[in-house]
Amino acid sequence: MTHPHHDIPPLSLNTATVREQWNLAQMIEACARHGIPGISPWRDKLAELGAGQAAAMIRAHGLTVTGLCRGGMFPAATPEGRRAAIEDNLRAIDDAATIGARCLVLVCGGLPTGSRDLAGARNMVRDGIAAILGHARAAGVPLAIEPLHPMYAADRCCVNTLAQALDLCDEIDSEGSLQATADGPAALGVAVDAYHVWWDPLLDESLARAGASRLLAYHICDWLTETRDLLLDRGMLGDGVIDLHALGQRVRRAGYVGFDEVEILSRHWWSVDADTVLTTIRERHPMCVSGA
Amino acid sequence: MTHPHHDIPPLSLNTATVREQWNLAQMIEACARHGIPGISPWRDKLAELGAGQAAAMIRAHGLTVTGLCRGGMFPAATPEGRRAAIEDNLRAIDDAATIGARCLVLVCGGLPTGSRDLAGARNMVRDGIAAILGHARAAGVPLAIEPLHPMYAADRCCVNTLAQALDLCDEIDSEGSLQATADGPAALGVAVDAYHVWWDPLLDESLARAGASRLLAYHICDWLTETRDLLLDRGMLGDGVIDLHALGQRVRRAGYVGFDEVEILSRHWWSVDADTVLTTIRERHPMCVSGA
Repeated sequence: MTHPHHDIPPLSLNTATVREQWNLAQMIEACARHGIPGISPWRDKLAELGAGQAAAMIRAHGLTVTGLCRGGMFPAATPEGRRAAIEDNLRAIDDAATIGARCLVLVCGGLPTGSRDLAGARNMVRDGIAAILGHARAAGVPLAIEPLHPMYAADRCCVNTLAQALDLCDEIDSEGSLQATADGPAALGVAVDAYHVWWDPLLDESLARAGASRLLAYHICDWLTETRDLLLDRGMLGDGVIDLHALGQRVRRAGYVGFDEVEILSRHWWSVDADTVLTTIRERHPMCVSGA
Repeated sequence: MTHPHHDIPPLSLNTATVREQWNLAQMIEACARHGIPGISPWRDKLAELGAGQAAAMIRAHGLTVTGLCRGGMFPAATPEGRRAAIEDNLRAIDDAATIGARCLVLVCGGLPTGSRDLAGARNMVRDGIAAILGHARAAGVPLAIEPLHPMYAADRCCVNTLAQALDLCDEIDSEGSLQATADGPAALGVAVDAYHVWWDPLLDESLARAGASRLLAYHICDWLTETRDLLLDRGMLGDGVIDLHALGQRVRRAGYVGFDEVEILSRHWWSVDADTVLTTIRERHPMCVSGA
């Protein structure tokens, strides 16, 4: 199947993809050089450069900030730990506002150390998001809950399906819209990552339920059949088994209108020259999303 | 919390747990020696001994066969491949009948080689089960669909949640009961494995929906926080983060009345003396299931 080139959504570079090779300044320049119109920094990279300077540089290069990664990590064994997480999230919201990020991505956190109480951790996530939503709303920064693959339930994120993330949205943010206009983003929505959701039998129902207002970000990479590491063996577009063409269509049919943000955590791709990584992404993206 | 000892469900040994150390004859003798009243062989071990001889030996040692692992693996790139899978499943049903297994566990299979069509693979699974159900019913062998963790969707099993497995049950086996009696097992049900389902936010609803007639087997092991291998790094009871005490209660509250079948695929435990593995299981099991 082929599509006219203008049907291909704009690309965004999630900085995790080349985090071992470059600093944020190098990434911003490289996006402009490679014709990648969006960027989504992680906070460690942002902190190195400083949010103010990063904002100026991103603006000077004409890039859209499709997200800031990441807030979240709410569960903790002690009240002090949970309070510290909330304060850190408030700072992340401020940084997201400074750089004009379309959303703050929340990787919500797993079980506190030594805990087997998954339901309890999920309650801590709910309470944590509820505690920061007012600040996010005031700052004009939508929060995007990213459901992570169930294999991260223990150590990274106990929100593991899109339906579960949307239940949280409905519970915490019944109001929905961030702005006065009805068709803007919700104050609380979701970041859909192909790697985390591609297997979900209920995905289409959940995407439809999310709709345009809650679909705040769409991340892509590929699932390698022989995955050798739970975290750091994600695949380049086209190297795995996810039908990114069909999945992109399903996400957009549900109302998503944003960027295709490429986030690849991979020891392999971190060992490759970063310009080569970006060239590969630029080459693969039209093929993968158009199904050509 | 402590429970009187007689509340602890009977144990069964899934032969995968010590597959690198022992053959089936050794496992049968060891179960009797260690006071483990159930066994669940894999077909490779059964084939070595022969189903008839295995049946006699299991009977002589007074063991209950809680399942035969495994049928399934239905998706294939060609009609011939799918037909071969069905024929293999028919033989597995006959073997399960010979040894008096309480069910044939179905690990349904992932994507055919080179395919990205997950929905298509799921249809092949449905068609494959439908093609063997009559034979299973005639043989008096319930089929237990085992939903596997979503991290196996590509290569092992595209049935990834209990809800999805139950949708298959309802679609293929609307009749439900295998026998004339209403309270017996269904002809088609599920095998619930703690490792595969512990993260599922909809687990309680799905367990309740399954109920006694479709809950054909319950497998246990533990999820290690730092899982180093997607397949062969499962944890000994108590070494991970699954609340096996609470999970067992949830499964039994939903109507399950069978054995706790221990299935641990682990390079570590395969390197340990097999009698030590069984001793460890016997020691850990009351602690884990009683929450003591």
